[in-house]
Amino acid sequence: MESCIFCKIIKGEIPAAKVYDGSKFIAFLDISPANKGHTLIIPKRHYVSLEEMPDGDGKEFGELQVKLGKAVMKATNAEGFNLLLNNGKAAGQEVMHAHIHIQPRFSSDDFHYKWTHKKYDDGEMQRMQEKIKQFL
Amino acid sequence: MESCIFCKIIKGEIPAAKVYDGSKFIAFLDISPANKGHTLIIPKRHYVSLEEMPDGDGKEFGELQVKLGKAVMKATNAEGFNLLLNNGKAAGQEVMHAHIHIQPRFSSDDFHYKWTHKKYDDGEMQRMQEKIKQFL
Repeated sequence: MESCIFCKIIKGEIPAAKVYDGSKFIAFLDISPANKGHTLIIPKRHYVSLEEMPDGDGKEFGELQVKLGKAVMKATNAEGFNLLLNNGKAAGQEVMHAHIHIQPRFSSDDFHYKWTHKKYDDGEMQRMQEKIKQFL
Repeated sequence: MESCIFCKIIKGEIPAAKVYDGSKFIAFLDISPANKGHTLIIPKRHYVSLEEMPDGDGKEFGELQVKLGKAVMKATNAEGFNLLLNNGKAAGQEVMHAHIHIQPRFSSDDFHYKWTHKKYDDGEMQRMQEKIKQFL
């Protein structure tokens, strides 16, 4: 997509510190990292979100998450890392080209991902289970 | 692992609302969801974290993220979703068996995943890029 900053990185029109260039995905350093070594994995095709991505593309995507997560930890001497994908504006997505964050983490960190816990009513969890299975 | 709650779910010793049972992964509803429909994907083998997971296992893992993300959105009528994996205690991991969260999201939500942005010094980003590539 012409105006998309990530598409421009893929085409080489904007420089980026690429660490991986595969058949369907590239990975590069976030220029404004949560911690140094913070890396983004993005599909080469302009999918706004995972809903547009064919399921099969998930294979390279997932393998790369595991491989790159390990590499980022080793390169940064991190104690852990987060994988975070904000899919859709309601989920906090800002650049509208699908991307997952790999964020190296340290005990001394200044950020935490927390949420409040909801409760299912009686039988509601089982109905939800059946509904999700229907769409798989 | 004997004392691991997720291993007990895999073995069927503790009930869970499973939505997927594959060759290397299962997925089930989080009993204490961020939003109803919140689903966890976990490896069947007791890997504490992704560092222990063979890269190749990422294929089923990633394909399932895409497939299940779509299914959770349809089942919940969510506007978006987050994928979140806390890998290691420093990253917020609580159950020490690797798992990724799929959290359906709505504009009206009461939680947001934010971080402060760090800065690279001159040349530091390129050194980090080379270091990560070394480990890939």
